[in-house]
Amino acid sequence: MTGFLLENATVVTGVPGADVIPDGAVFLDDGVVVSIGPRGTLRSPDTATRIDAGGGIVMPGLVNAHSHAADGLFRGLVEDLPLEPWLQTVWKAEGAILNADTVRLGARLGLAEMLLSGITATLDMFWYPFSTAKAAEELGIRLVGGGVFIDGKTSDGLDHRGHLAESEKFILGYRDHPHIHAAVQPHGTYTVGPSSLKDTGELARRHGVLWGTHAAETAFEQATVTKRHGRSVIRHLSDLGLLGPDVTLAHCVHLDEEEIALLASTGTNVAHNPVSNLKLGSGISPVPDMLAAGVNVALGTDGPISGNDLDPWLAMRLAAILHKGARQDATAVPAETAFWMATANGARALGLADRIGTLEPGKAADLILVDTGGAHATPMFDPVNFLVFAAGRGDVRDVFVGGEPVVRNRRLARADLAAIKRDVAALVPDIRASIGR
Amino acid sequence: MTGFLLENATVVTGVPGADVIPDGAVFLDDGVVVSIGPRGTLRSPDTATRIDAGGGIVMPGLVNAHSHAADGLFRGLVEDLPLEPWLQTVWKAEGAILNADTVRLGARLGLAEMLLSGITATLDMFWYPFSTAKAAEELGIRLVGGGVFIDGKTSDGLDHRGHLAESEKFILGYRDHPHIHAAVQPHGTYTVGPSSLKDTGELARRHGVLWGTHAAETAFEQATVTKRHGRSVIRHLSDLGLLGPDVTLAHCVHLDEEEIALLASTGTNVAHNPVSNLKLGSGISPVPDMLAAGVNVALGTDGPISGNDLDPWLAMRLAAILHKGARQDATAVPAETAFWMATANGARALGLADRIGTLEPGKAADLILVDTGGAHATPMFDPVNFLVFAAGRGDVRDVFVGGEPVVRNRRLARADLAAIKRDVAALVPDIRASIGR
Repeated sequence: MTGFLLENATVVTGVPGADVIPDGAVFLDDGVVVSIGPRGTLRSPDTATRIDAGGGIVMPGLVNAHSHAADGLFRGLVEDLPLEPWLQTVWKAEGAILNADTVRLGARLGLAEMLLSGITATLDMFWYPFSTAKAAEELGIRLVGGGVFIDGKTSDGLDHRGHLAESEKFILGYRDHPHIHAAVQPHGTYTVGPSSLKDTGELARRHGVLWGTHAAETAFEQATVTKRHGRSVIRHLSDLGLLGPDVTLAHCVHLDEEEIALLASTGTNVAHNPVSNLKLGSGISPVPDMLAAGVNVALGTDGPISGNDLDPWLAMRLAAILHKGARQDATAVPAETAFWMATANGARALGLADRIGTLEPGKAADLILVDTGGAHATPMFDPVNFLVFAAGRGDVRDVFVGGEPVVRNRRLARADLAAIKRDVAALVPDIRASIGR
Repeated sequence: MTGFLLENATVVTGVPGADVIPDGAVFLDDGVVVSIGPRGTLRSPDTATRIDAGGGIVMPGLVNAHSHAADGLFRGLVEDLPLEPWLQTVWKAEGAILNADTVRLGARLGLAEMLLSGITATLDMFWYPFSTAKAAEELGIRLVGGGVFIDGKTSDGLDHRGHLAESEKFILGYRDHPHIHAAVQPHGTYTVGPSSLKDTGELARRHGVLWGTHAAETAFEQATVTKRHGRSVIRHLSDLGLLGPDVTLAHCVHLDEEEIALLASTGTNVAHNPVSNLKLGSGISPVPDMLAAGVNVALGTDGPISGNDLDPWLAMRLAAILHKGARQDATAVPAETAFWMATANGARALGLADRIGTLEPGKAADLILVDTGGAHATPMFDPVNFLVFAAGRGDVRDVFVGGEPVVRNRRLARADLAAIKRDVAALVPDIRASIGR
């Protein structure tokens, strides 16, 4: 193979100030973007595979800064409950169903959905991290994953030391992998005690990998942590030395001004998950305040049990419109900002800013082709406005990760979606039974 | 033709208490639903066209209780402005561009988008109502439309008497039409004076047709009307005798308790438009309070300039999740309620509760087939939860209006979307020029 030449496209690079090439082309080879420019200006070998974008948009792949892919097994199982009782029921089902095989199956489903929706990289938190990594290798998506921690009995039967060992094994095992990257992710400050949290942070920093956790998702969590530790979630993390540019916190819905300032001054990344924050009744995150303070805010889909899907377009659109409505300020979070949250900010939150998030020569060829044949794509006065305010998962035609085509013409290139769906459907009776339904 | 038999489907009828038939079938003939039941139990002629639903979901068509289809011409033209300055710019473009032909073209685009997204009926408010009606006849969608009113100079050059005459002509002209129905719709209480408003109400009631207007969309509007008339928007309408079960008010974002009680006691219908309310920074409507008070709340997409698309699935999902998040109450607006808002409540808001909104023998065969082949449709513990929390416009495969197939396999049956898109694209330079861009 000698690369792919994508032609007849509007190219949205996501690079501030140089972001749209109206009749453009992109040449990829050896896993990276080689060149970008107007039609007919790129040099590429005759043997390159030419792909007609049909007048669509080529843009950086969407980056998911918070997911639990394998939780797709439980999508829609528990509805209309607040976060804590909802979590109790979900954990019951997880305890009964999860093992290395079922997680691999659930991860196949969740990662397939992500790829087909235009997500090229995800920061995933789930038990049996090697199973999710294997599913990511099968499907070809870029994954930041690894060890997960929670105090007490966990689905996988491992104790804290077991999880530390698993986590380190993941870090070492995937050290040089082209599209699987390690992170260390304890569940949260209300579910993992301070000394265990510090262990996980030390492990991550010793190996120079990303550290992440759920933080300040609900008012209940803030109250619990404050009561238990005498300080709120973000202050607790700060006092434990667990803020920084190598840290990504999921949610951050309930924050005061000082906590936002702490996130900003330490360069801590935040994954905003508007769909699950709304659906679970957690609240509305102060995203405009975080952005104004200079916090790097990325976007997450969260898990398909809280979504109930993994739709990055919905997350991006909500990031752009929710805060306008909640604050009665139509200028809050402009379209371009939401676009960056879903791309470049996400890359930074995954610790991969040097590799992905924008289309630039030398960066990994993680990119997608968005079809503009839909009624909702006409007229198009501005492609970024279209992408943020009107495009959707159904418009994603082709997806490349590390230069490999992993979705072509809306179909997975390396796996059979129908077979994955059948395998998951076969588990449904057991899943129902696990919570007595 | 002797009807259509849809088989191999989960049938969601939308009728409370009898809403899901797991392996069901629906037989339609002569424009109506003839029978619904489990596979193999329906009598249908051998000459009926059999349609394999492929295990998908057959459900009532989605009802759009507030739209401006032809505004699709200006989709994405003006962004990031609050409602009032935004309206001033939009009205400038409308004044320069709109005529009977361009409105027909814009309506084709907007109505095509609606059909392809699963909307079978819409309450549309726009200038040149005969043009939108012609587009609806071409495409086969059910339309409730007719005369629009605003004080002062309007795009169509008609004065108040001219609009009254146009409105009455529409009512009389479409009196017996199978899928075009008349309504009378002044723009709003801040743009139409009391005596003109009363004229429009009398016209609607003299002919027994629906009356509707924008109401209480923004805090600015409430303040303006209160200052001008000494009473808030809903009280103003009440004092003018313009509330009732034959009235549908779009938005109702800014209401006090007494106004909600007025809507409830008069049986007035409300069209909730969560996407435009968020994007334009109008605010978050007190939907749970209206529902608790017994108000019939339906869903609207609003126009594609404020959306920026016409996605009923997004409206339904937001109706279900937005209020959970805004109130930090995961039990607010359950999935089933949101489903009814998008179907049966919409039918009532369009004055068509006896004809559409549920799948029942004798009602019009306005129904859609939702494909469940997507990754996000597995597993499916409950079809209504899936429809509300995970389905999307890309899942709509077939659409029937009045028993006629108007979308088959994701393509318009009676029109060429690519040609509509080309015609609209040809107008773009003039549209840009109209606001000096």
